[in-house]
Amino acid sequence: MRRYADDSLALHTDLYQINMAKAYWDDGVHNRNAVFDLFFRKLPFGNGYAVFAGLERIIQYLEGFGFSESDIEYLREEVGYEEEFLHFLKDMRFTGTVRSMKEGELAFGNMPMVRVEAPLAQAQILETALLNIVNYQTLIATKANRIKHVVEDGVVMEFGSRRAQELDAAVWGTRSAYIGGFDATSNVRAGKIFGIPVAGTHSHAMVQAYRDEYKAFHKYAESHKDCVFLVDTYDTLKSGVPTAIKVAKELGDKINFTGIRLDSGDIAYLSKEARKMLDEAGFTDTKIIASNDLDEYTILNLKAQGAEIDIWGIGTKLITAYDQPALGAVYKLVSIEGENGEMIDTIKISSNAEKVSTPGKKRVYRIVNTINHKSEGDYIALEHEDPQSEQRLKMFHPVHTYISKFVTNFEARELHEEIYSNGELVYKIPDLVNIRKFVDENLQLLWDEYKRSLNPEEYPVDLSDECWTNKVELIKQVKEEVKDRFNQKQA
Amino acid sequence: MRRYADDSLALHTDLYQINMAKAYWDDGVHNRNAVFDLFFRKLPFGNGYAVFAGLERIIQYLEGFGFSESDIEYLREEVGYEEEFLHFLKDMRFTGTVRSMKEGELAFGNMPMVRVEAPLAQAQILETALLNIVNYQTLIATKANRIKHVVEDGVVMEFGSRRAQELDAAVWGTRSAYIGGFDATSNVRAGKIFGIPVAGTHSHAMVQAYRDEYKAFHKYAESHKDCVFLVDTYDTLKSGVPTAIKVAKELGDKINFTGIRLDSGDIAYLSKEARKMLDEAGFTDTKIIASNDLDEYTILNLKAQGAEIDIWGIGTKLITAYDQPALGAVYKLVSIEGENGEMIDTIKISSNAEKVSTPGKKRVYRIVNTINHKSEGDYIALEHEDPQSEQRLKMFHPVHTYISKFVTNFEARELHEEIYSNGELVYKIPDLVNIRKFVDENLQLLWDEYKRSLNPEEYPVDLSDECWTNKVELIKQVKEEVKDRFNQKQA
Repeated sequence: MRRYADDSLALHTDLYQINMAKAYWDDGVHNRNAVFDLFFRKLPFGNGYAVFAGLERIIQYLEGFGFSESDIEYLREEVGYEEEFLHFLKDMRFTGTVRSMKEGELAFGNMPMVRVEAPLAQAQILETALLNIVNYQTLIATKANRIKHVVEDGVVMEFGSRRAQELDAAVWGTRSAYIGGFDATSNVRAGKIFGIPVAGTHSHAMVQAYRDEYKAFHKYAESHKDCVFLVDTYDTLKSGVPTAIKVAKELGDKINFTGIRLDSGDIAYLSKEARKMLDEAGFTDTKIIASNDLDEYTILNLKAQGAEIDIWGIGTKLITAYDQPALGAVYKLVSIEGENGEMIDTIKISSNAEKVSTPGKKRVYRIVNTINHKSEGDYIALEHEDPQSEQRLKMFHPVHTYISKFVTNFEARELHEEIYSNGELVYKIPDLVNIRKFVDENLQLLWDEYKRSLNPEEYPVDLSDECWTNKVELIKQVKEEVKDRFNQKQA
Repeated sequence: MRRYADDSLALHTDLYQINMAKAYWDDGVHNRNAVFDLFFRKLPFGNGYAVFAGLERIIQYLEGFGFSESDIEYLREEVGYEEEFLHFLKDMRFTGTVRSMKEGELAFGNMPMVRVEAPLAQAQILETALLNIVNYQTLIATKANRIKHVVEDGVVMEFGSRRAQELDAAVWGTRSAYIGGFDATSNVRAGKIFGIPVAGTHSHAMVQAYRDEYKAFHKYAESHKDCVFLVDTYDTLKSGVPTAIKVAKELGDKINFTGIRLDSGDIAYLSKEARKMLDEAGFTDTKIIASNDLDEYTILNLKAQGAEIDIWGIGTKLITAYDQPALGAVYKLVSIEGENGEMIDTIKISSNAEKVSTPGKKRVYRIVNTINHKSEGDYIALEHEDPQSEQRLKMFHPVHTYISKFVTNFEARELHEEIYSNGELVYKIPDLVNIRKFVDENLQLLWDEYKRSLNPEEYPVDLSDECWTNKVELIKQVKEEVKDRFNQKQA
């Protein structure tokens, strides 16, 4: 690895982004205003909603955006761009406007989470990093929220650093998990930089180091007032739990015997037996912590079997989003400045209907019923529209258009905040605790049918009439152009 | 996020590691010599071998290891450790000895990839970061090698940054992919810092920006001598491929029409049709690149259907190891210094037989048959043993011990290198190109039966007689101790 004092993240992009920027620059269109939408098509894990996360990291990235000397040197020597284009890159700073969901906002398929409006070349170069960040953090916040949903009132802790996909995933993943509803993390650095509560006592290695549970628990208790003993190093019920109880009795008020941790074996059975043993010994407040390859499915099952678990430690399955480790968000050009300064909407056609993008510079609203305070669905409109001014808002399914309704008493809450205005940061990230609370507030707007973890109802994400018509027209136009070109070639 | 000028990775650990260090320190055993093995139990993806990676990052981590002022401040204020222990942490540097496989070495289940011998408290604190690094990088190097295996002589490129699990995974993942046999990456920063070849031309956005394939291809060609045109923005066969051919014909020698890229639709059908069209137009050297959610399974299928693909671009499924996104390596204490300076071997028992660790300070050998130059299997022996000195080496299955053989003409190649000697770095990472070659050299030692991607034969990883006996004795000893303790409690 070559180390650079001036390492930057500007090169954290795909080569084709810079190659396109080069073509735009050669053609003199690099500064044309361009609007890109960042969105996913399909909700992850079969969940009914996603929890948006990644904005803090995006701001960090954009604040530091710029090609360093060594970046330029690399592009000159190894990729072979000419000097003039390199000068252009060297001076590039982010000068665009970003509107984005706040972290903790609920996102659904085909709804822009982030909208970037910037000079074409710039907007293009940002794509890779923005997707890299949002795809992962939103995925983990959503997974965490699913897990928290089944845990209900229990406490849930993030223990996954050792299985995370490299270092960044460990810390940004646990931040996302905290947003999604987790209560604490084992990662101390995440505790330091994000202020997330940290938790953890001892591992099997400590019992092995003393080669004796009794001694190991005693030694731990001599150093720490609050004690959670890991009881499965040798035999949970024959050795671990009785030893923990013995040590706790011997030490009495000198320690808080806050818990035991089960990390292997039949957690349902062991937790019930351990609970009995603790209760019989008078330790009714001592909690039972479970932590062995858990996720929302195993937790649901363990609860159904009456497992006596108070605290859940979740590692691998959360931090890697094991059952679906990628979100698949994309970043699509929806509008671009033409030769005369006018904005022209653009579309990406595909043989897969669900992959057709929605053209135009758009805004996103949540339509909240002002009588029952529940959401009627989300509503995507063109920039100039004002859904709040409508007496009766028509909402219809963007594919099955016959599914429609009129909404009368509603508040149209815009879901995007202005984050950057012409390159200037105009937004302040809230405290993480408030982002976490914001998720719960947003979830209160949703009927339970959208929130169940298995086969939830599909939440409506509708297009305004104008937005829908614009899309249909553009599809028609492109199809005709393709046909014309094809006929020309055949002729 | 709180930003610190002196941010370090020492806190990139689980809290329990520091809590254990505290207990050890209070008890005065923190400097006892401890040996930990880092290994996985089960090969990922059902593959017959894994490709070890992560060592460069481990060295980077260990070279920078140390708690900074702000780390100590956090531990004082937020975790509440006492001053004396904080002093101890503040002065902590890595003083241990690390023996590790070289990157690109083949690893199998229950075989130490890395062995750390260090003062107990230190060795404990390193665990989390070491696992975090090796788990991800080894997983991706292995996945990449599986993909390269089915691609055979084709070229394979890493395109996954936008779907990677945060930024580190994108760059370290592509480095791992390159080790595993990938030929290039789209991530420019990875190109810069690791010297990996970078590749990429343009995306759908460029066609959309010009709202015309013909114009977009022309504009690209005006800026770039080597042209790969993305042909599926509107309609691959009706529009994309004919337009690419038309532009290439018009420009003649002004460009190298190196390829077309297919990114959607039925790749098998489209590639065959596109190949015909290119060949008929005289572009027989123009390559076809495919890049839509590919992995080793889809590639095998596409090849079986006669798809005409020369270059494979792999994203999500590689960079997240989609079908198994975590390796599950662990870090187990295998030997520890006793009160009188003697080393005592330790074991972790479990009700799952495969989770029982192998005690003792060990060395790992590959037993290469000197007549056919193929490996007979790997051989784990205790530190003082010298398998090369044996006339006939007995190799037997560590669980099904009746499966055994004697090997005569062999070379016992040790698989670990000394990386750190008492805290001093004594190893130099080879060039990445050589690490990549090393994988191929290693694979040549294996019979094909171990290398097929589906249901490979199980490669033998055997214990020496002495190592096996040591393990069996320790299991017996621990079980008796547990029984004794249980009987005491019952009495």
